[in-house]
Amino acid sequence: MRKADIIYAFEEQAGRRFVDGVWGKVPTYTVVIGNTETAKVPGVSAAGAVPEITDFTPAADVELLHYGRCKCIDGVPVTPTGVPTPGIISMSALQLAPMPTFVINGGVRVRPHTPYFEIEGEPGEDIRTGRALKDPRRAYENALQLGRQLARGSPYLVIGESIAGGTTTALAVLLAMGYDGQGKVSSSMIDNPHSLKERIAREGIANAPFSAEEMRADPLKAVQAVGDPMMPAAAGVVAGAAESVPVLMAGGTQMAAVMALVKGLAPHVLENVALGTTKWIVNDRSSDVRAIVRQVGEVPILAADLDFGPSRHEGLAVFEKGLVKEGVGAGGIAIAAFLSSQGRIGAKTMLEKVEENYVRLMRLMGK
Amino acid sequence: MRKADIIYAFEEQAGRRFVDGVWGKVPTYTVVIGNTETAKVPGVSAAGAVPEITDFTPAADVELLHYGRCKCIDGVPVTPTGVPTPGIISMSALQLAPMPTFVINGGVRVRPHTPYFEIEGEPGEDIRTGRALKDPRRAYENALQLGRQLARGSPYLVIGESIAGGTTTALAVLLAMGYDGQGKVSSSMIDNPHSLKERIAREGIANAPFSAEEMRADPLKAVQAVGDPMMPAAAGVVAGAAESVPVLMAGGTQMAAVMALVKGLAPHVLENVALGTTKWIVNDRSSDVRAIVRQVGEVPILAADLDFGPSRHEGLAVFEKGLVKEGVGAGGIAIAAFLSSQGRIGAKTMLEKVEENYVRLMRLMGK
Repeated sequence: MRKADIIYAFEEQAGRRFVDGVWGKVPTYTVVIGNTETAKVPGVSAAGAVPEITDFTPAADVELLHYGRCKCIDGVPVTPTGVPTPGIISMSALQLAPMPTFVINGGVRVRPHTPYFEIEGEPGEDIRTGRALKDPRRAYENALQLGRQLARGSPYLVIGESIAGGTTTALAVLLAMGYDGQGKVSSSMIDNPHSLKERIAREGIANAPFSAEEMRADPLKAVQAVGDPMMPAAAGVVAGAAESVPVLMAGGTQMAAVMALVKGLAPHVLENVALGTTKWIVNDRSSDVRAIVRQVGEVPILAADLDFGPSRHEGLAVFEKGLVKEGVGAGGIAIAAFLSSQGRIGAKTMLEKVEENYVRLMRLMGK
Repeated sequence: MRKADIIYAFEEQAGRRFVDGVWGKVPTYTVVIGNTETAKVPGVSAAGAVPEITDFTPAADVELLHYGRCKCIDGVPVTPTGVPTPGIISMSALQLAPMPTFVINGGVRVRPHTPYFEIEGEPGEDIRTGRALKDPRRAYENALQLGRQLARGSPYLVIGESIAGGTTTALAVLLAMGYDGQGKVSSSMIDNPHSLKERIAREGIANAPFSAEEMRADPLKAVQAVGDPMMPAAAGVVAGAAESVPVLMAGGTQMAAVMALVKGLAPHVLENVALGTTKWIVNDRSSDVRAIVRQVGEVPILAADLDFGPSRHEGLAVFEKGLVKEGVGAGGIAIAAFLSSQGRIGAKTMLEKVEENYVRLMRLMGK
């Protein structure tokens, strides 16, 4: 009986087939990091108490995965209201169910104190310029190679991301590719600033050196104009790996935008793909991940049925209120831990491990 | 019956145990690239017809592995006498027995047009300065992490290298660590310039900012003074991976020097290690890989029993005369192909595939 704490949130039948195919197997986890200046527009991101700190967030997140603590900053990334990074969930899942974990540098300003794959990506500019990235095609092609190599040695791949400001760029790229994304992308804040995001996205699209038709016809042009450096990297790895193995795209609406990219660049691989996210994303009333994925195709959405409600720690219990919700592959990695352990690891074990790490990290921070 | 075209060249019993342990399994292949200014000292390296081209050799070698042709140069790396890079052997073995292949940037001047792992290494200076590397400990520690991650997803690891000038730095580091290396390191040329290499090594050791005792006590100090950027990267990956899985160190006397480093840094992992090289190395009368490994410990040496004698191509037949001999993990990857195929791939199949690639590449070069 294949029973795990998973919600089949979209395309249930395909979702169950995906789970059947990877049940009991240990995937390789890759996490793509990047920075975009867009994160520093006031009001866009909660992934840092001050805008400049968002440069450090991705590096700090992957250090947490590798060492159980951050190196490039003291403590851990927190939102302005003190909620810890969802990387604490990913780290806990990896401790419960170890899997090979590789960082991919999509394009960061602050490099992590960990090994990472270099694919010649570059940090992204403020998308309002319409000139967000210099050469996403080069990063995409290197990532495609990388995805193929990773697939050779793994039964399946999980790919997550850490990039502050990423839902705004996700919206912009969706709109530029002709998708209806308005009001549908998620936010790490309780009040999702949809109108701010749309204003930024529309300004970038208007300033792009490409016509609307060009960006619809070539997704990498949309990314070049208004995307972020996580996108071509993640899309390339998915396109390369899913040629031969299943790929669980670990993330919420940002990953859904990457999925739309993959559809434009390598549609034949989508049958090997699922989106893996958290309950907090699929239950979110201020965003609509299903509506985005539905436009891409019949790709299943799995959600880790985590429950932090019972936690005695305020900083964790608030996850139930929809702060943070997802990131650093939290939902997908939790799902991978559930599946590799054949359901022995579940929401309860996860909360225990997350609480243990939370206490340890708060102590490290002197709190 | 475990029969493969392998020569058990040292510690046969341990070598057979190693083979038993990995028989039929598909490893992950990592190849560490680096540059050292030492390669440009006249007479040191054959890995480029002109000294400056040695900067391109490692990048070109790994492009060959990924794409079947080089991107950063036209054609393929050749010695001044026109013998192709041993990477043609590694590439052929990988075509016969595909395995996940990852490049690790130990520290290069010319970056390859492939994805690669970044571990924050830097290109090496001329070792005659006694200040070859800035921070080998940082690269070592990142590589250690990387080795641990790679081991999680692989039954075993093969690690090769491409760095021109590497046997001279190997000699220098062996001497600095107190090993008897004189006259024992290999060469890609027919006339092994032992006295030139010794002069360079001794000059570097004399100029080192560390005492002889310091370099014997701390191998990373020896590397910092007179090593090359491949060394801390390879040693770290071996030390990290061999904690949990077997590691085949694919190379000749350069890898033997890395093994000596590993002994100084993580001696407990050596029981999980073997050296995998070519017949041309173990039969070489101008070097003595066994004498180096014997000083390290009871580590087996396996040699791919390749035979290019029957080739109708002069550029390949000359391998039997001891030109080139080894590099880009040629011997170890050939062994891995023999073992993963349970002996179905052997010396004959290898020569056929190498000839096929040789003809294709010569045609690409318009020859």
